[in-house]
Amino acid sequence: MSPIQGTRTGGRSARVQQAVHDAVRDLQRERSRSELSVPLVAQRAGVTPSTVYRRWGTLQELLADVARERMRPDDPPDDTGALDTDLKAWARQYLEEISSSPGREYVRDLVASEGEENSEQCNRYCQVKIRAILDRAAERGEPHPDADTVTDRVTAPIVFRVFFAPGDPTPEWAEELIDQVLADL
Amino acid sequence: MSPIQGTRTGGRSARVQQAVHDAVRDLQRERSRSELSVPLVAQRAGVTPSTVYRRWGTLQELLADVARERMRPDDPPDDTGALDTDLKAWARQYLEEISSSPGREYVRDLVASEGEENSEQCNRYCQVKIRAILDRAAERGEPHPDADTVTDRVTAPIVFRVFFAPGDPTPEWAEELIDQVLADL
Repeated sequence: MSPIQGTRTGGRSARVQQAVHDAVRDLQRERSRSELSVPLVAQRAGVTPSTVYRRWGTLQELLADVARERMRPDDPPDDTGALDTDLKAWARQYLEEISSSPGREYVRDLVASEGEENSEQCNRYCQVKIRAILDRAAERGEPHPDADTVTDRVTAPIVFRVFFAPGDPTPEWAEELIDQVLADL
Repeated sequence: MSPIQGTRTGGRSARVQQAVHDAVRDLQRERSRSELSVPLVAQRAGVTPSTVYRRWGTLQELLADVARERMRPDDPPDDTGALDTDLKAWARQYLEEISSSPGREYVRDLVASEGEENSEQCNRYCQVKIRAILDRAAERGEPHPDADTVTDRVTAPIVFRVFFAPGDPTPEWAEELIDQVLADL
């Protein structure tokens, strides 16, 4: 039975979304990017291609939607007890995530998407984590930078180096970015 | 007569490249991105589609190649007589260039390209300009940051904000990035 058949109509829209997203993620593990197509995704999800076209428009927009969902912050960032180590734990994890091969492809899908909604949402998710860390620092009474400063001085160079610079940035380099931001407080 | 017919065979490869790149740039001015195709570009350039496929593989790679060429630094950066104003003039120009609608599309094409060669080349071009400015500062005996620091603290946040943050970054904000880097010397 396909993932969609046999379900009740209440919440069908959410179930279609779930089935199509799951199909994309499965296919991304099994096939190269150039092999993906709307008919292939639709078949795997048990929906018609026109359902996918109606909802997402193009394969590119569907991939961007999946990428955005993938970046949604599900867990609060680790609480290590201090701003310095909280930021470093987050930066290491973020660097690892986006420099992984699926992570690179997700960011590529977001940037390639026509509108800017998807990539902006991705940054908002990222800022949710940064703000949670900064709020904890404020509660502890620690001096801390604002979220925009962390974005410009940590998130931005991590993303830029992963996509535009040769060689893989190291966790040590990411930690140094944090040291520099905190030294400027 | 098509741009290719009637030319001699010496340097044919360079002429094909030029004709195909010109065709892409013309079509980018006239049509939306989703209307572009290899056959359309080939027709405009006066070559066969298979010539384009053989050389560039896919439309995506061809667009990335054109984008990379577009970013090639042709002129040395303006010499305003001081590091501070040299960097600010360059940053304002760079921000204007990549936040323009063709600029955004060029960067999008670079990031969407499968290999990393194109986007890395783009950063190298950017670093050529930064290094020229820093070399001039060294000749004047001015204290100056290194090129990687300027990349992380100026280029990266400009690119990140253009692509991932809502609203358009202002020239004043870009100048402030420079002030902060120079204040840390």
